[in-house]
Amino acid sequence: MPSIRVAVLASGGGTDLQSIIDASEANEINAEVVLVVTNNPGAYCLERADKHGIDGVAIDHRKKKREEHERMMADAIDPYEPDLIVLAGYIRMLTPWFIDHYRNRMINIHPALLPLFGGPGMHGTKVHAAVLESGMKVSGCTVHFVDEDVDGGPIIVQKAVPVLEGDTPDTLQARVLSEEHVLLPRAVQLFAEGRLRIDGKRCEIEPR
Amino acid sequence: MPSIRVAVLASGGGTDLQSIIDASEANEINAEVVLVVTNNPGAYCLERADKHGIDGVAIDHRKKKREEHERMMADAIDPYEPDLIVLAGYIRMLTPWFIDHYRNRMINIHPALLPLFGGPGMHGTKVHAAVLESGMKVSGCTVHFVDEDVDGGPIIVQKAVPVLEGDTPDTLQARVLSEEHVLLPRAVQLFAEGRLRIDGKRCEIEPR
Repeated sequence: MPSIRVAVLASGGGTDLQSIIDASEANEINAEVVLVVTNNPGAYCLERADKHGIDGVAIDHRKKKREEHERMMADAIDPYEPDLIVLAGYIRMLTPWFIDHYRNRMINIHPALLPLFGGPGMHGTKVHAAVLESGMKVSGCTVHFVDEDVDGGPIIVQKAVPVLEGDTPDTLQARVLSEEHVLLPRAVQLFAEGRLRIDGKRCEIEPR
Repeated sequence: MPSIRVAVLASGGGTDLQSIIDASEANEINAEVVLVVTNNPGAYCLERADKHGIDGVAIDHRKKKREEHERMMADAIDPYEPDLIVLAGYIRMLTPWFIDHYRNRMINIHPALLPLFGGPGMHGTKVHAAVLESGMKVSGCTVHFVDEDVDGGPIIVQKAVPVLEGDTPDTLQARVLSEEHVLLPRAVQLFAEGRLRIDGKRCEIEPR
């Protein structure tokens, strides 16, 4: 099976990005990361890309209108002709234009069991702090298609993670992250295999 | 450790009740079911109680005011001096009087990952139909203390269960039920060991 071409957007360290790169280099997934884009010129994800011979580009969002910034990102992305865009810790809100431009081929990973603990402003340790505050004993992570509802698009895969007594946002984040690094390559592979069928707000996984 | 005395309220077949009886008879938990109460005179849970030599009582809710019915239930329950009341598939809404009467010693099992898919009217296969409709790939079950918020009291334990492609409400219910039968005795044992500390809407489990 040929590999799909993947562009990854990230704002920070990029451990989720690393999970795709590792799975790709180990031939565990039929996917190749062809470009890493960040809004944060100092983000470590650029170094990760460079270490693996992947093109990286920083497009600073500051002093730009939101759609102007996104059109610049798309201008950087589209020449690579990616089959799939992965938001891997990309924390900026997206405009309807960008969402529509990559409709049904852009996915996001979120560190909770959506629809819980999602929406505007919910990222990083804020998510895990909210889980602990709620008293839930289970959290998890979700990979979903991106649509106009923030963190509300069709869910592709989810994995539950236990909340343990004494957890802090940091310890819970670490436990969830390690599952993210399994879940995200799995979602990419399902996309690569052409097995995802979007039906309204649901995403069905077709048998092999 | 001495056994706590448990009264179980159920409206139907009582498989969750059976899970407590089985764990008790196998000495896996320090708890003894001393009474089964139902609002449904034809409910199979009464036969289960009888088979195990447990007192059972049906108090029909029909043609009674809600609080009148509940005061009759409490009059039946309280002479048994239970330490814990377990709602195991008891589907009627409770009045503030009943909730307050058994405050911090009444728990409920719900066939979803609360706060998702709970609230008035959400019971039985309706819950699982709603999960499937949502497109979530994970569901589960929850045991929580009962307070004035329907399905909204402090969560004691939760267990996640995968949603599989092709699931119907019935197949998902069966998978969740089998986890309920593990989760509910575990919650009863934590209560018996005196390890549950309620703090507002959270419930902490103390180390042994």
